[in-house]
Amino acid sequence: MCQLLGMNCNVPTDIVFSFTGFATRGGRTDEHKDGWGIAFFEGAGVRLFVDHQSAVASPVADLIKRYPIKSRNVIAHIRKATQGHIALENCHPFVRELWGRYWVFAHNGDLKNFAPKLHGPFRPVGSTDSELAFCYLLQQLHAQFGDTAPTTKALSHALKTLTEEIAAHGVFNMMLSDGSALYAYCSTKLHYIVRQYPFTQAMLSDEDLSVDFSEVTTPNDRVALIVTEPLTTNETWHAFAPGELKIFFDGAPITTTT
Amino acid sequence: MCQLLGMNCNVPTDIVFSFTGFATRGGRTDEHKDGWGIAFFEGAGVRLFVDHQSAVASPVADLIKRYPIKSRNVIAHIRKATQGHIALENCHPFVRELWGRYWVFAHNGDLKNFAPKLHGPFRPVGSTDSELAFCYLLQQLHAQFGDTAPTTKALSHALKTLTEEIAAHGVFNMMLSDGSALYAYCSTKLHYIVRQYPFTQAMLSDEDLSVDFSEVTTPNDRVALIVTEPLTTNETWHAFAPGELKIFFDGAPITTTT
Repeated sequence: MCQLLGMNCNVPTDIVFSFTGFATRGGRTDEHKDGWGIAFFEGAGVRLFVDHQSAVASPVADLIKRYPIKSRNVIAHIRKATQGHIALENCHPFVRELWGRYWVFAHNGDLKNFAPKLHGPFRPVGSTDSELAFCYLLQQLHAQFGDTAPTTKALSHALKTLTEEIAAHGVFNMMLSDGSALYAYCSTKLHYIVRQYPFTQAMLSDEDLSVDFSEVTTPNDRVALIVTEPLTTNETWHAFAPGELKIFFDGAPITTTT
Repeated sequence: MCQLLGMNCNVPTDIVFSFTGFATRGGRTDEHKDGWGIAFFEGAGVRLFVDHQSAVASPVADLIKRYPIKSRNVIAHIRKATQGHIALENCHPFVRELWGRYWVFAHNGDLKNFAPKLHGPFRPVGSTDSELAFCYLLQQLHAQFGDTAPTTKALSHALKTLTEEIAAHGVFNMMLSDGSALYAYCSTKLHYIVRQYPFTQAMLSDEDLSVDFSEVTTPNDRVALIVTEPLTTNETWHAFAPGELKIFFDGAPITTTT
C-alpha cells in the first residue's frame, strides 16, 4: 500500500517540516520505497514532482526538503507498489485538467475487480488501479455537470456517491484538489489536524526534528494537514471514520450538507 | 517572445549541457526572465518542472543543471511574457493527456485575433495564447481521430494543416511530443542539429563550457537538438524554412510524406 499527505491552508504555507517526516517513511522508517510524488498548487498552476526512486534517495525530494515552496493546497504520496510496476507513469499524484482547472489526485489502497467503462476523454497513461479510478471519477463528474464547474457543495455530494461506489471494490483512501478545496475520502485510514492560533511546538515521529510554529506564523494562519498515519508525537490527530468524505477549505474542514 | 529547446534521441540522454547554455538566456545573456519550464519523458511518464522565477535564479533550474535526468524526448522553454501575466499557470511547457498518452507542448511567438471555439474537453487554465493554441490543437486532433490514436504519418498530416491555420494568426513556432516523436513547427525561426558518430567537441555560445561528446556516448547514439537560436559556436546548425513541420524520431528528422 502507500501513504498520503495533504495540506490545505488559508495562506500559502510551506510543507518542508511535514514532508521531511513523511519522506522518511519512503524507504527508511517505513517500506514505501517504490516512488513518490508531490503536487503544489500556486494560484491556478501546479508544480508536480514525481520520481520512481525512493523518497529518501531522490535528489528531487532533497530539493523539496530545502526549497520552501509556499502553497495553499498540497498533495503528496509515497508508493509501495501493489498494482502497476515501478515506473514514472505509475507515481502519484496524477494531474488532469477539467473545467479549465487542474485536478490533483492520489490514492492509498488496492481495488479488486474494478474495470469501469471509460468512454470519456480521460484515459490512464500508466497501469495502476489508482489512475484508472481518477479517470473514472473525472469522467463521471464531467458527465454529471457538463462543461460548467459545479459548486463545492454539488461536487461534494457527487464525490460522496462516486467514492463509495469505488470503495466497494477494496481499499480507497484518496485525496483530490482543484487548488481551492481539498477533498479527502477515508475508506480505512486517514487522520487530520488543524493548526491555528495559539500555535505550539510540534515534534516529528519519523525524524529527530521539531518546529515551533508560533515563530513562523501569524495569528490569522490556519493549516489543515491530512495524512495516513499521524506525523507528530505531541499533537492530537483526529481519525476519519471509514466511509467519511471531508472537504477542507481555508485550512479547516467544512460542512456542505446543511 | 520566448525561446524553445527540444531534444529527441534514440537512447535516453541527459540534457544538462544544452540546458545549461539555454537557461543562461533566461535572464543573463538574454531577456527571457518571466518564467521557464522543462518536461522530460521517461517511458510513458513525464516529469514537468516549471517556475515563474527566471531560469538563472531558480533553485529548480539549478537542480536540473546538476541532476542528469535521462530522457528520449525533452521540451524546454524560457519565457518573455507577451500575453498572460507572470504566473505558474502561464509557464510552458503545458501537459495534457489524449489517447492515454501525455502530450507536452511549448510555443514561441505571439498570436493575434486567435479565439477558436473550444467545445471539447481541453480548456486553458492560464491566460496565454499558447495554452489556448495547445487546447485547440488537441481538440481538433481528437475530433478528427476520435478515441484511437492515429499513426505518426496521419498525425503529421493533420498537424501540418492545423499549425498553418494557427500560424496565420501571427508567430507560431512550436514543439509537441507524446514521448515517442517530437513535432517541431517553424513559423519564423527554429534550428536543429543531429549529433551522431563520430562525436566531437561542442562549445556553448552562452557559457564558457564545452563537452567532448565522444567521451560520453556510444557509436550507436543519435541525438537531435531543436532550438530557437543555435546553442554552440563550433557546430553547423540547420535552419528550418518558415512553414516547415519536422518530425523527429530516434534522434533524426523523418519523412512522412512518401
